[in-house]
Amino acid sequence: MLTPEAVQVHLDSLTKPPGSLGRLEDLAARLCRIQQTLRPATRPRRLVLFAADHGVVEEGVTAWGSDVTELMVRNIVGGGAASSVLARATGTDLRLIDVGTHARALPETTAYACRKVRAGTRNLARGPALTPDEFGRAVDIGRDQARAAAADGVRVVAAGEMGIGNTTPASCLTALLAGASAEECVGRGAGIGDEGLGRKHAVVSRAVDAARARLETDPVGAMAAVGGLEIAAIAGFFAEAAEIGLTVVLDGFVATSGALVAERLRAGTATSLIAAHKSAEPGHALALAGLALEPFLDTWRMRLGEGTGALLLMPLLDAAAAVVAEMATLSDAGIRPDGH
Amino acid sequence: MLTPEAVQVHLDSLTKPPGSLGRLEDLAARLCRIQQTLRPATRPRRLVLFAADHGVVEEGVTAWGSDVTELMVRNIVGGGAASSVLARATGTDLRLIDVGTHARALPETTAYACRKVRAGTRNLARGPALTPDEFGRAVDIGRDQARAAAADGVRVVAAGEMGIGNTTPASCLTALLAGASAEECVGRGAGIGDEGLGRKHAVVSRAVDAARARLETDPVGAMAAVGGLEIAAIAGFFAEAAEIGLTVVLDGFVATSGALVAERLRAGTATSLIAAHKSAEPGHALALAGLALEPFLDTWRMRLGEGTGALLLMPLLDAAAAVVAEMATLSDAGIRPDGH
Repeated sequence: MLTPEAVQVHLDSLTKPPGSLGRLEDLAARLCRIQQTLRPATRPRRLVLFAADHGVVEEGVTAWGSDVTELMVRNIVGGGAASSVLARATGTDLRLIDVGTHARALPETTAYACRKVRAGTRNLARGPALTPDEFGRAVDIGRDQARAAAADGVRVVAAGEMGIGNTTPASCLTALLAGASAEECVGRGAGIGDEGLGRKHAVVSRAVDAARARLETDPVGAMAAVGGLEIAAIAGFFAEAAEIGLTVVLDGFVATSGALVAERLRAGTATSLIAAHKSAEPGHALALAGLALEPFLDTWRMRLGEGTGALLLMPLLDAAAAVVAEMATLSDAGIRPDGH
Repeated sequence: MLTPEAVQVHLDSLTKPPGSLGRLEDLAARLCRIQQTLRPATRPRRLVLFAADHGVVEEGVTAWGSDVTELMVRNIVGGGAASSVLARATGTDLRLIDVGTHARALPETTAYACRKVRAGTRNLARGPALTPDEFGRAVDIGRDQARAAAADGVRVVAAGEMGIGNTTPASCLTALLAGASAEECVGRGAGIGDEGLGRKHAVVSRAVDAARARLETDPVGAMAAVGGLEIAAIAGFFAEAAEIGLTVVLDGFVATSGALVAERLRAGTATSLIAAHKSAEPGHALALAGLALEPFLDTWRMRLGEGTGALLLMPLLDAAAAVVAEMATLSDAGIRPDGH
């Protein structure tokens, strides 16, 4: 067992004043603790993007329409999306799994698979978005992807999402699972105006009230009622990744709502997570607090999703791992602990 | 002329909601503006570390002693220091130039050169640290390094420093040039205790009062009196790098005090700078504000120097450049500007 104290002793033995690398040392310490080694691995790494559509868009709660889902799936797989570009720039393998969009399937490759549970969720403003069975099938698809990553030798994983309308279920799940009010958890998503924001508030508030009533007796049913297929898949992915010892880099608001679900599926999942950033969506800080996670890029105001925030942290993870594994100690350099 | 508006139009044409990449878009925009292109280059890149000693350490204002200078120079050149490790991790060429330490010279290589102006400054608490001539010679060494980088095809540069005691002259220069009080500009450096902090306050306060009196009539003399050889070299490096069109990534407090000097040597230098981070040293935020720069890693609390903060920003610069150059536009992807 490598204790946090032992990691700190090592960090303080390196050729620098104690703590002088600031949050890079926090990142290094977390990586060492998760991997239980002073030689943490940050590659190979993979971002799995789960894509799905949401019936709730018919309530007018989104800036973009579901008609762009297929175009964005093609853009991601084709290499032109923010996630595709940042995955290349950071040396991260990218795969997209369609767990429930309206998009036509593309030819299967190592970078794309169609595993639709259903073509979009039902409208959560009118009734349960998913049945517990549908929810569970999406969770299992996520679990499969975590096992596949481990089988391929991947050491660090992240999950991202592409789902027009998915900040609405993410707001619901955050309110439901992080003990926040619906009001606090609703933001503008891709950029909806004031009127749409009012509709989103009302929809989330009603759906959360209904789900809260069944959370204790039927937690899976409650989460399914306000969930999304990509969020359920992310939850399964995180829970399984934590179970089998992968290091998980956590993206933004929607992914973090999946982490809240994962923590319900498998208590302790959050201890395997590294929170990459704090998004501009107001619910994200609440979701992170609910998991006791401190985000690293906490002033970067990202709100795109697609795993882009997690990707940005990857090279900083490399830097943190290099500091721990490669820096000379004071003793190596002939410097006394008092700096003389 | 590529205007900031034209850069913004391009960023908003990419396949993402406008502004949704947050500060990564700010970083991309700054890079494009400095390089005047939508295809900015981030490699090859080089960190030049200027090393020097400081007579003021005899006042007891530092946590570490000048006896570690030689050991740290060897550690940096030998590959075991934080800067060496982070330079490797981020694909950045590293050179160390001794502009005035007490250390014995090492054999000259492409990664190390001894260009001592003198072995350490005089004690600025007792009189001028440097003569204007010594100061100018250090500035010229910095200028030479910027020209050498350009001649080698380097596109992005950073400067760092290794100088036991150099937060004292950095505090003096920040108070002198950024219009702040000595009180606001003094911090604990490598980690000095309360008593040493009191001495540092008194030393900086007296030295700044003396220097202020001659700033208008003899600016170089005033800066030399409270300066450092590595800070003067950094100032020359920045001024020349800006002059010949290199992109400059700015490190922490000491490097930023060099940027304040550079701005005096060549007005407009700050427009070529990208501020990597905001250090834990209280004077750093004031120095950055004096240059109208907004730091990117603004909550990372780094305070090591050696260019380590600048190095951490390098892969984020790669990510920003990739977004601008490689993302598909909405029009490429067949998405209308209104997200349908």
